[in-house]
Amino acid sequence: MRDFSQDHHWLSINTATVRRQQGEEVGLARIIDQCAERGVRAISPWRDQVAAAGLDKVAAQLRAHGMGLSGYCRGGFYPAPDAAGLKAALEDNRRAIDEAKTLDAPCLVLVVGSLPGALAGKAAYKDIGRARSEVHDGIAASLEYAREVGMPLAIEPLHPMQAAERACINTLEQALDICDELDPGKSGMLGVALDVYHVWWDPKLQQQIERAGRERLLAYHVCDWLTPTRDLLNDRGMMGDGVIELRKIRGWVEAAGYAGYSEVEIFSTQDWWLRSGDETLDTCIERHRSVV
Amino acid sequence: MRDFSQDHHWLSINTATVRRQQGEEVGLARIIDQCAERGVRAISPWRDQVAAAGLDKVAAQLRAHGMGLSGYCRGGFYPAPDAAGLKAALEDNRRAIDEAKTLDAPCLVLVVGSLPGALAGKAAYKDIGRARSEVHDGIAASLEYAREVGMPLAIEPLHPMQAAERACINTLEQALDICDELDPGKSGMLGVALDVYHVWWDPKLQQQIERAGRERLLAYHVCDWLTPTRDLLNDRGMMGDGVIELRKIRGWVEAAGYAGYSEVEIFSTQDWWLRSGDETLDTCIERHRSVV
Repeated sequence: MRDFSQDHHWLSINTATVRRQQGEEVGLARIIDQCAERGVRAISPWRDQVAAAGLDKVAAQLRAHGMGLSGYCRGGFYPAPDAAGLKAALEDNRRAIDEAKTLDAPCLVLVVGSLPGALAGKAAYKDIGRARSEVHDGIAASLEYAREVGMPLAIEPLHPMQAAERACINTLEQALDICDELDPGKSGMLGVALDVYHVWWDPKLQQQIERAGRERLLAYHVCDWLTPTRDLLNDRGMMGDGVIELRKIRGWVEAAGYAGYSEVEIFSTQDWWLRSGDETLDTCIERHRSVV
Repeated sequence: MRDFSQDHHWLSINTATVRRQQGEEVGLARIIDQCAERGVRAISPWRDQVAAAGLDKVAAQLRAHGMGLSGYCRGGFYPAPDAAGLKAALEDNRRAIDEAKTLDAPCLVLVVGSLPGALAGKAAYKDIGRARSEVHDGIAASLEYAREVGMPLAIEPLHPMQAAERACINTLEQALDICDELDPGKSGMLGVALDVYHVWWDPKLQQQIERAGRERLLAYHVCDWLTPTRDLLNDRGMMGDGVIELRKIRGWVEAAGYAGYSEVEIFSTQDWWLRSGDETLDTCIERHRSVV
């Protein structure tokens, strides 16, 4: 297992972690500078942040800092109530793949979607089996294009509490079943983004991480699970402040062959997003060394 | 599949559903009368409600109404930071089994517990594997006594969002693995309480319900998953108001051989617990007929 205690060579910052600082939205250019000042070697930006900052400008800024990506957030959201919606989702994912290429991302993270309309409180249908089928077909279609241009797709299984609105792929086992079905040869073009927040509870976690192996483990995200958790989406904890066994899980991931970044992704309306970005980033670095 | 549309013969009311009425705590005696007035044939009461009302009084009131139980809530909470705590949990479960016998319950529902202290925000340890081991041993010990007195134990897998505080058994598959290990002969003394709220998202749900079969399906609970869900514990929806495919899941459960009650269990700080108990119970009956 790698020693993280001496530096933050393998730390990446998911830019959602500091997208709000002292309660205010902060642009990606500023976030990149804050990371660069601290010697952070990689980030994982979100599409809306990139769009607001300008794709080419972001690419140039990253090059100027010698900064890489640990992933690009995010493609997915495949299910739709009708054929036009399904087609639009595929087109949008194609654009996401192109952006990921421009930014030289190692993978495009897929939050696959679930019951269409549920995010707005009005599910167009309740059949999660149908959503899963649409996700399967959507990933298959995106994978064809991803192979053409050489951009790996990383399915992110989301916590079951987000199964209605955000992702109907909810366990690592389920994600790997899809990988094995669509990419039996383990080409490196389809794998998973493993976020401890979503999977820490899973009794089959160690077993499925072993199954995933190096070929399928394309990204690794950390934060912590707070007790109590006050919100189903935006109450993630800083590493060390919750109950997730971070060292143990990283041990499993590295034993399976993962040797990439440990990406910090924290959504925190009531705590970290209210603090200064400098404090949040300094804490990420400190905790990366001490508890991740 | 049974036709529920003509009556509410197979409706049971988990008494937590109306434990608060118009925002006020209501005693079990009153709740039992409200259910009896509506021809509800079964309830599932909670230990604290029974203790407050008096065990023998509750038993007598149930007999007077000819009312049965669909389960008794609840045993479990096995993990503890030390030997004294583990022993105390076993003794408490023994008392719960005795109470269930006095009330002639068909099973004692087990919410097995998880990281000790996490409910109070201070986990004594973070090792969920240890909690799972303590739960395994605790159920094994309780099962010995349960066999002696003839009280089936029903493990309730809880939603993964409650994995830190309330239960480290989080999927039906995991619960059935424990059942098979501790009761390989399917004696009828160990099984599961299946609550749609906890398991609806599970991609292996249908498969594992088939695996469970009649011998392991000891109780069936319904409510609904709201979008958005505003609280991790107390924002359950009335059947029909959320996204759970209730008919489909009941179809699977009945195809596997379950022929017992459909028990309504709704915790709802912001909605149903603010309404009158009469309105809540009438709505349970109506929805039992129309959407369950």
